[in-house]
Parts: sequence; structure tokens; C-alpha cells
Amino acid sequence: MSQKTHIPQTAPFRWEDVPVLAYKEDGGTHFKGITRQVLFDEGGKLGAQLRYFEIAPGGHSTLERHDHAHCVMVVRGAGRALVGKDIHELGTNDLVRVPPRTWHQFRATDVGPLGFLCLVSQERDKPQRPTEADLAALRDEQAVGSFIRT
Amino acid sequence: MSQKTHIPQTAPFRWEDVPVLAYKEDGGTHFKGITRQVLFDEGGKLGAQLRYFEIAPGGHSTLERHDHAHCVMVVRGAGRALVGKDIHELGTNDLVRVPPRTWHQFRATDVGPLGFLCLVSQERDKPQRPTEADLAALRDEQAVGSFIRT
Repeated sequence: MSQKTHIPQTAPFRWEDVPVLAYKEDGGTHFKGITRQVLFDEGGKLGAQLRYFEIAPGGHSTLERHDHAHCVMVVRGAGRALVGKDIHELGTNDLVRVPPRTWHQFRATDVGPLGFLCLVSQERDKPQRPTEADLAALRDEQAVGSFIRT
Repeated sequence: MSQKTHIPQTAPFRWEDVPVLAYKEDGGTHFKGITRQVLFDEGGKLGAQLRYFEIAPGGHSTLERHDHAHCVMVVRGAGRALVGKDIHELGTNDLVRVPPRTWHQFRATDVGPLGFLCLVSQERDKPQRPTEADLAALRDEQAVGSFIRT
């Protein structure tokens, strides 16, 4: 991470010397059309990362949960998010808080990208994906069953 | 801070149940036309706050420094920032990192607001304002002297 004091945006949602990364380093088919950029990776007392994720039209993040919380702000476009058993309609500048140990998944619309900031602790546990039993429980709620992509 | 999982934007840069606060609780004449909203105040391992500040046209934040770092992202409008001895021209989505113990001040343009996110640790030291000697040193650099508002 650069220690410059000003990192200009160079094109829409692209920043100087900030690489566009794969969403997950290990690949996988449980997500679709999503990139990651690390905007801040601040050590010391803060110990936090601010990442920008962008989901292409029709794409989605991984359905997962973990012990750490996510603080999310949509900054581009619109979409939907599953958080627990709630499906939220998201517009630009909306905030989403994903509490610890809560299933969540973000989806873009079919017509435009969904870009969001996600604030996390630098030190955090690895996400868990749902077991077949977890999926069966999630699908008990019909709207959730229709929403999730696995 | 609400523990809801979705906090919609209700008007441009206003959010449901997120109060618009004074920039500083103790008042003062060392800032002008600036409000504060706390978007996330997340305890636990993260221990961080994400605040939204908005500076009205012609306004400015306090010229100050402190031990904690600021991670800033402009999300509305344009302006300028002093960080150390550098004056940065800021556009929407630009990033600014204020390192520890570094003089800084944000200014809106005269024609529109400057709105930015500022990420900090929940636990942080109190800002220091410049002494007369500090101001004299800052004014050694002519551009800085012209920029700062005290």
C-alpha cells in the first residue's frame, strides 16, 4: 500500500497505483463478476482495511459468514444484499452492516454494476461457506432460497 | 449507533436515523460551515468509526494534527486539502491519507460542498491546534500560508 497522502481517482472507481485484484485469491465458482481494490490498509492503532468491491451486472459475491463484522457503503449503482434472513434493496450511498456470524451475499442488478466500500479489521477470520444443512435452513425462507447463488 | 443491517440514504448524504451533528462539540471559530455524521461506530475487534463530514461552499475544517491517522475518501464535490506541506486538489472519489502528527486542513471550493468519509480508530488522541510558532513555520511556505484558515 502506498504511503502517499493523495491518491487520485484516475478513471471511474479506479485509483492511481491501486491494482484491481481478484475478489478471492483462491478462485472458485461461488462468486461471479467481482473485483477488489484495497484503498487503505492502515496498520498501527487503527488496524483496518477499506476495500472497494465492484460486482458486474448479473454478478454476486460469495454467500458466506465469519466472526468479523463488515461495514459497507454502496458508492456505485444499486443492487441487493442478503444479511441474515433479510434481503435489502440497495441504492447508492446506502449503508449495510453485516454483524458477526451472519450469512450474507451481495448481488448487482442485471443492468449495471454494484460498487461498495467494505471496512474490516486487518486481522480477521476466514469466511465460512454454507454446508448442505446450512443451505437447507436458508432455503426454508422462500425469498432467501430464490435470492441466494451458490 | 443503530444496529440495523440496512441504513438507507434518505436524501443526498443524509441517512435514516443518523443525526447531523456539530463538527466539534466544543464549538470554536477555527472551522467554518462543517457538519459531521457518524455512519459506523463499530466496536469489537474493528474498533473504528466511519464519519461523513460535509463542508459548505467557502468553509473549512480546523487546521490541526494528532497522533492518529485519518483515512479519507471524498464522496461529494471537490475541494482542497493541506497535508503536511502539500496542498492537494481533490475531486470526488479521491483518497487522502493523513499520517500521524501531520498538519492538515480541508477546504471546500466557493461553489459547492465538499463531502468526505473519514475513517479513524474509536480510541484516539485529541487534536492539537497550532501554536504561533507552528503557524510561523507553516507560513514559511508561501502557498501554505495562503491556504490555511485559522
